This record gives sequence, C-alpha cells and structure tokens, in this order.
Amino acid sequence: MIALDAHGADRGAATVLAGARLSGVPVRVFGPAAELEVPEPEGAVELVDCPIAVGSDEEPARAVRARPEASIVRAAVAVGEGHAEALVSAGPTGAALAASLFHVKRLRGVHRPAIAALVPVPGRPTLLLDAGANAEVRPEHLVQFAYMGAAFMEAVHGVARPRVGLLSIGAEAGRGTPGVVAAHERLAAGQLDFVGNLEGHDLTGGVADVVVTDGFTGNVALKTMEGTARTVVAAIRAAVRSGAVSTVGGLLIRKPLVALRRELDPNAVGGAILLGLRSVVVIAHGGSSDEGIAAAIRLARRAVDERMVERTAAALDAGDALRSVPAGSVAGRHD
Amino acid sequence: MIALDAHGADRGAATVLAGARLSGVPVRVFGPAAELEVPEPEGAVELVDCPIAVGSDEEPARAVRARPEASIVRAAVAVGEGHAEALVSAGPTGAALAASLFHVKRLRGVHRPAIAALVPVPGRPTLLLDAGANAEVRPEHLVQFAYMGAAFMEAVHGVARPRVGLLSIGAEAGRGTPGVVAAHERLAAGQLDFVGNLEGHDLTGGVADVVVTDGFTGNVALKTMEGTARTVVAAIRAAVRSGAVSTVGGLLIRKPLVALRRELDPNAVGGAILLGLRSVVVIAHGGSSDEGIAAAIRLARRAVDERMVERTAAALDAGDALRSVPAGSVAGRHD
Repeated sequence: MIALDAHGADRGAATVLAGARLSGVPVRVFGPAAELEVPEPEGAVELVDCPIAVGSDEEPARAVRARPEASIVRAAVAVGEGHAEALVSAGPTGAALAASLFHVKRLRGVHRPAIAALVPVPGRPTLLLDAGANAEVRPEHLVQFAYMGAAFMEAVHGVARPRVGLLSIGAEAGRGTPGVVAAHERLAAGQLDFVGNLEGHDLTGGVADVVVTDGFTGNVALKTMEGTARTVVAAIRAAVRSGAVSTVGGLLIRKPLVALRRELDPNAVGGAILLGLRSVVVIAHGGSSDEGIAAAIRLARRAVDERMVERTAAALDAGDALRSVPAGSVAGRHD
Repeated sequence: MIALDAHGADRGAATVLAGARLSGVPVRVFGPAAELEVPEPEGAVELVDCPIAVGSDEEPARAVRARPEASIVRAAVAVGEGHAEALVSAGPTGAALAASLFHVKRLRGVHRPAIAALVPVPGRPTLLLDAGANAEVRPEHLVQFAYMGAAFMEAVHGVARPRVGLLSIGAEAGRGTPGVVAAHERLAAGQLDFVGNLEGHDLTGGVADVVVTDGFTGNVALKTMEGTARTVVAAIRAAVRSGAVSTVGGLLIRKPLVALRRELDPNAVGGAILLGLRSVVVIAHGGSSDEGIAAAIRLARRAVDERMVERTAAALDAGDALRSVPAGSVAGRHD
C-alpha cells in the first residue's frame, strides 16, 4: 500500500487520483473528497478525505508542525506508523521533506536525507544528489549521499557496481571548495567505485551512475539541464521551420523531436526520491500528468519491492559512513 | 596593443599566432619563436620570444611567482606596466588569473575579480558570473559581481539598463544559502535593475542580462549547459538518422543543425572576461581555433575601446559596492 498526497499538484487533485488509478498499484489517497469522484467499487484505490493542504508559500517545517490534519502530514504519519509502505507527493517539496523528517524519520546514523533525481537526458541513467534538500553540506554529508545514491542505483536500477563521481570545478583531486576536497579524500579511501571529480559537462556524458553534490549546486544543475534541453529543442524546431526546405524538413523531423521530448519529459521518470529515510518517499514533479503520477507510484512500489531502504542502510554501514562511527576511526575501517 | 599569451592553447602556439593575424588588431604575441614562423614584415602582429610556459597541472600562484620569464607573466607585466592595453590568453585559467592578480592588479575597492562568460545558447546574450574564479564567496562579493557584470553588458554589449538576477534554488527572496539571502537583500536595496532570484532554467530563458552566482555553482552551470546542448544535438542527429525517412530528413535538417552548433560554439563568443581588474583580461576557450582566438582579441579590443574598466569602477562607486565604504553605512547610500 502506497500513501499518496493528492494536494499541491499543478493539475489538481483529480489528476493525482487519475494517476493512482492508472498505476495499477494499491494506493491510499489523502485528498479533498468534495473535489473528487470515487466510483464504487474502486478496487486498488481508496480515498481518505483530507481537505486541508500545505501551500508552497508557507514555511514548510512550521506549517507541517501546525497542521497535523494536512494531507501530506497524514500521509507521512500513515507511513511512519506502518499503515503504508511508501509516500508519494506532487505537492511542495519542502512540505514533503519536512513531513518525512518528522514522521517517516531518518535512518539511524544518517545526517541528512537527500533528494536524488535522474538526469533528464537520453541514454544511460545518471543519478544526481542532492538536488535541493540541503543548500549547505559538510563533507560527511557528501560521503553519505554517495553511499545512498549507489545503493539506490543498485537496488532500483540494477546497476551492479555503480560508478560514483563528485561534482566539482576541475578533474584534479585538489579542485573545488575545501568541503569538496575533504569529501574527495574520504571517498577515494572508501568502498565505492569512486571515479573522482566530475565537471558539469560530465552530467550528461554517461561517465558515472551517481553524481554527488550539495543541494544548491545540484538543484541549479538539474534545472539548468532542463532549461537548456528545452531551449535547444525549441531552437531546432524554429530553425527547421524557417528554412527554404522547412515544411518537408519539419514533417520529417517531427517524430524524432516528439520522441526526444518524451525522453526529456520529467513525467516519464516518475519523480525524485528522498534517500536516507526509514521508508521510501517519492516526490513527483509538480506539473505531473496522470501518467507522471502513475510513474511516481510505480517507482515507489519498485523501491519498496527491491528493499531499497534496507540496502541503503547496509551500504552506509559497510562503508563506515554512518554518524555513529567516529570520523577517522581506523579500527572501524574495512580496508 | 593587445598582449597575447601563445602558450597553453590546446591547438598549439601556431593556431594562436594565426588567430592574432586573423583578428586585424595590433597584437604583441608572447610565445616560442622556435615553433613559429613570423614572416617579415608582419604588420600588426609582433612576436616576443618567450619559450617558457606555465602548465595546467601546476599550482598557478606558485608557478606564476616562481617563473617571471613565463609567457603569461610577461604578457601580464606588459599590461601592468602600460605597454599593452589588454591581456588575452588561451592557456590555463588559473595561471591567467594569478598573473593578472599579481601584475594587472585589482581595481581599488574590489574584493575579488570574477570570470564572466556569456551563456552559450541562442537568443539574447546572458552574462553569467562568477564562472569559476572564486569557489567560495561572501555576500559582498556577489554584490560586486552584480555591478561589474552590469557595467560589462552596458559597455560591451550596449544593454541600456541590464536586468540582474541572483542564481538560487527558489524564486522567493528567502531561498538559498545564508550568503545568497544576504546578497539578495543588498541587491534589492541597491541601484541596479535587480530582478531577484533566478533558478537554473532561467539561465537560458532570457529573463536577465546578468546572472550572479559563486564560482563553484557558476562553473558547474556553464559546463552543464555546454554538455546538455551537445548531448541534445547529438540525440537529435541520431534520431533523424535512425528513422525510415531518415536520409531525406537528415539532409534537410543538416543546415539548421550546423547553424545551431555554430551558435553553441564557444569559439564564436571569443572567451570569458575577467572583471574587477585595472585592465581588460580575456580568457579564450582552451580549445579555440584561430577564429576563436581572433574573436577573443576583438572582444578585448572592444572592451578597451568602450572603456569597460573605467565604467566598471564608476558603476561600483555609484552603487556603493566598493570595499572602502563601510558595510551598512547609511550616510554613504544614494537612496
């Protein structure tokens, strides 16, 4: 059973409910019954009436604390209390993050959960984290992100031994902020298949399965990729339309362009995933269609079935990346 | 007269020299005479024999201090002593930055020079800074970058009143790191046409003429744009080639794709510019062709002719953004 928050999606609660039906997965929807028509019998989808929401203009932690009846809070509580296995929301990211921290809770020994997102470009998938949960990080956070991201790619995408890179502004080990340099040292001495520093152009180059960075840089990089891809596709369409051979050329290019747009479409991916929590939490794109919501639900289901959380905890432990292990403890190292 | 460092370019000193000839601008080239053929009379281009270089694998500040005979140092000294008006290099960025700091020197009251680069996407040009000179910055640095970038766009690109944005991870004033939030406050209270926080997708959206960020995020964002544009263009070419109508479609699309590739080509822009120094310094793309070098030289010439440095100093002064003005001094504010 997946707990689904129906509030806060750009296309409204009805689209979220439609996505739940489309997914084919058992889902409990927390949303405004008055706005939704649930035919009886509904099969795999049940609705819990929950008219109260947390808005995107509110300070998330405060709103989540103040409003226990809000849909995102009730959905997170359902997961925290074991009535549902995973949480999915297309509402404000901050609210989902705050509700998850309070009610789903962090894995023991995890400093900070991170938002992990697949890079929206064609080809082999690359996971980028943190994509915005933590604007500032310490080296030990980056190290945990690396283990968490690798465990996700192994569990959910079947990548046998994920190659992990650290985003920086030069390939050499000494390049970047002091925090990045310190994280590089620890990752180079650790258990992962660490490929070293990567630069911005490597995000789309397929040279790593996991790219680790702070939430400020990761968020900017992800949105920069989305914007650039959109701009380039639009420029090609405009160029094709403008030429002398344009009409025929435009017709011939239409199909590949549509296919590419689908590959770049965040709806296809399903959403970002919060790593470092005691259960699976998926944050669907705010602008998700019903298909986008369905993909997010299936992603959550798959992460549960593949025991992502348990494997993440085991990977952090095996890599000595948990908070309870004193930093620099030689005795605790597996090397 | 422009001082040109001929060492360190990916395609060798001969390409740099060819670019100097191509530019049509008087240039003094500091490079290895043994590798170069300079026919007599050479006209606008003169060669100073300078066989010693600073490599990209060296610690820049140390190498620049230790090797006064290196080409980048001699070229920077020529500018600092007034024998040349601007410096152009396609060698390692760190070496050009260090040599400029030591010998061209900062403008009085400037905390840190910044690397400013035009975003490589079609449409109206957007300047991004810092693109990598300062991995970590304080709010007052970001404020200076804003004034410096606006002055450049006004002087060199003729933008009457540049719109300036601050890169962050949310549009609201309170989003981002504490440093970004503090810079936002100062810019909102300042003299510029400040459009507030921008996000990654805005870099290609044409919503600002200048986008300000720290050198870590800016470097990652710029390289992410380059990589994404390249990947998307390649995906479209592959898609066109693969279909049933592929051959005809491929022929028809070839011209617009080539045109787009030219627009995305760093060689067309000429290079990044160092702002906050007492003279113009242009850092050409390391992989520049002779045309790329020529464009970089013309960019430097134009920045000198348009009195970019003087206008930058005046803009920083008018905006009370210089270091000599105590922060928070109410008496000094022009409001």
